[in-house]
Amino acid sequence: MAVTSTKPSAPEGHADLKTIVGPQRELLDQLLDKWGQLLLTTLCEQPRRFNELKREFDGITQKPLTQSLRRLERNGLVERRVLQQRPVAVEYRITPLGRTLQEPFLMLRAWTADHLAEVERHRDAYDGRPDTL
Amino acid sequence: MAVTSTKPSAPEGHADLKTIVGPQRELLDQLLDKWGQLLLTTLCEQPRRFNELKREFDGITQKPLTQSLRRLERNGLVERRVLQQRPVAVEYRITPLGRTLQEPFLMLRAWTADHLAEVERHRDAYDGRPDTL
Repeated sequence: MAVTSTKPSAPEGHADLKTIVGPQRELLDQLLDKWGQLLLTTLCEQPRRFNELKREFDGITQKPLTQSLRRLERNGLVERRVLQQRPVAVEYRITPLGRTLQEPFLMLRAWTADHLAEVERHRDAYDGRPDTL
Repeated sequence: MAVTSTKPSAPEGHADLKTIVGPQRELLDQLLDKWGQLLLTTLCEQPRRFNELKREFDGITQKPLTQSLRRLERNGLVERRVLQQRPVAVEYRITPLGRTLQEPFLMLRAWTADHLAEVERHRDAYDGRPDTL
């Protein structure tokens, strides 16, 4: 399936900016949604039931958790299984495709942990500037 | 500056899930905003003037472009310079801190390009399922 730019007039040297817009852009946005990458890296550790995820992510309510999981499943990154037991439970596990995202996501998370203090110093300096011409 | 969890009751083995919530979580969200990482990787190539960026990113209007650049600048990832010329022009360039994000962002972009077709097959299969119990 060819991914082509929707605009014909790409400035020379920036073809990748054009091609990233469109379906790839949309996928990247979905990958990077608020909870998606956190859920994905969690499921790389081991499968989890819905209620376990809800407990672990105490900043998330049921609806956005369900939506994020559904999006991960639809994109083929996570597999949803209904466990044959009473009461019925639903388990989520990472797919081989989903696991290929573990490394870039962990890199980003490590970056955030390593550089948060530095970023906060920049924010303080920015907010304290007398003039933002 | 210590980054601590705001909740005391972390389940054993998932401390990193707790610590990512809060300031690190917020920073990660900012890094991954719709245009931020695309602007950042572009500025890693070479400095750009505002109008050049606006031309290159033909999916973006002035306001979100300005907001994304301001956020990158506030986080210390991009430097804004007013060029002494007529008419006055504003140039953005990557900072050393910003450049440390180039590798993970390019990894994600490459992942997207490499796996889009596979993701689309999963989406088609998901959307075509008769029952989504």
